[in-house]
Amino acid sequence: MIGGLGAALLLAALGVQAQLKPEDQIKYRQAGYNFMAWNMGRIKAQVVDGSVPYNKDQVAAAASAIAAIANSGMGSLFAPGTATDKMGDKTRLKPEFFQNLDQANKLARDFTGAVNKLASETASGDQARIKTAFGAVGKTCKACHDQFRTD
Amino acid sequence: MIGGLGAALLLAALGVQAQLKPEDQIKYRQAGYNFMAWNMGRIKAQVVDGSVPYNKDQVAAAASAIAAIANSGMGSLFAPGTATDKMGDKTRLKPEFFQNLDQANKLARDFTGAVNKLASETASGDQARIKTAFGAVGKTCKACHDQFRTD
Repeated sequence: MIGGLGAALLLAALGVQAQLKPEDQIKYRQAGYNFMAWNMGRIKAQVVDGSVPYNKDQVAAAASAIAAIANSGMGSLFAPGTATDKMGDKTRLKPEFFQNLDQANKLARDFTGAVNKLASETASGDQARIKTAFGAVGKTCKACHDQFRTD
Repeated sequence: MIGGLGAALLLAALGVQAQLKPEDQIKYRQAGYNFMAWNMGRIKAQVVDGSVPYNKDQVAAAASAIAAIANSGMGSLFAPGTATDKMGDKTRLKPEFFQNLDQANKLARDFTGAVNKLASETASGDQARIKTAFGAVGKTCKACHDQFRTD
């Protein structure tokens, strides 16, 4: 597994990875977050709101998709030059992200840890535990949005 | 696991799942395909083209993301009324899709089987086997695009 955002940025800086154009980095990272958002919504509907009947396999599949996306090495889609100062309204990533990479890495690790926990809890079928793990994921999403995403 | 596209469409028809707006179904399914495309590109660069050095863990993570997205139950994002006849250029899904659901289901099963095979092959670290499995996935992508996606 690629060792988090820091390692990915280092690899990118070293030119080890073929560098995608900024527009494509933004497109692909937004795709990942949008697909995670769909799956978060499905889990919320079934386990938090109860607006859709709980289906253990569906919730587990949704959490697995979120975890696999989070663990796929998205850090390489956050190369310098891909924030709002250079890319305008194509992205919501604040330039502060690149001045606080230690903090960005910490938030990314918190997020990955929380989604992995959610994925493992969905196997239990215990809705109370899944709901708790889901709430913890939401907090890690919000922490990064509050700090590094424009409104 | 949700039992393929047919089961998802049946659930949608029965109103068991909260139905997303057509625009949102399109947005989320495109997000899934775009994120899979990024990961296919990474595997291709490392295992087929050799333009990026092979990294076993990165390739495995990329294949895991593809497989988890493919297995997440995307069939529920293909409700009737979400093809070009109703949604114009918001989508590339041909209306023929909904007149050939048996064929669409077969292509979806072929795709899911091929990506699961790719994911398991990446664990071997055998680049020749990974390349073969990657090629097989590409064929299942193309089969569906040729039949049900506009140019």
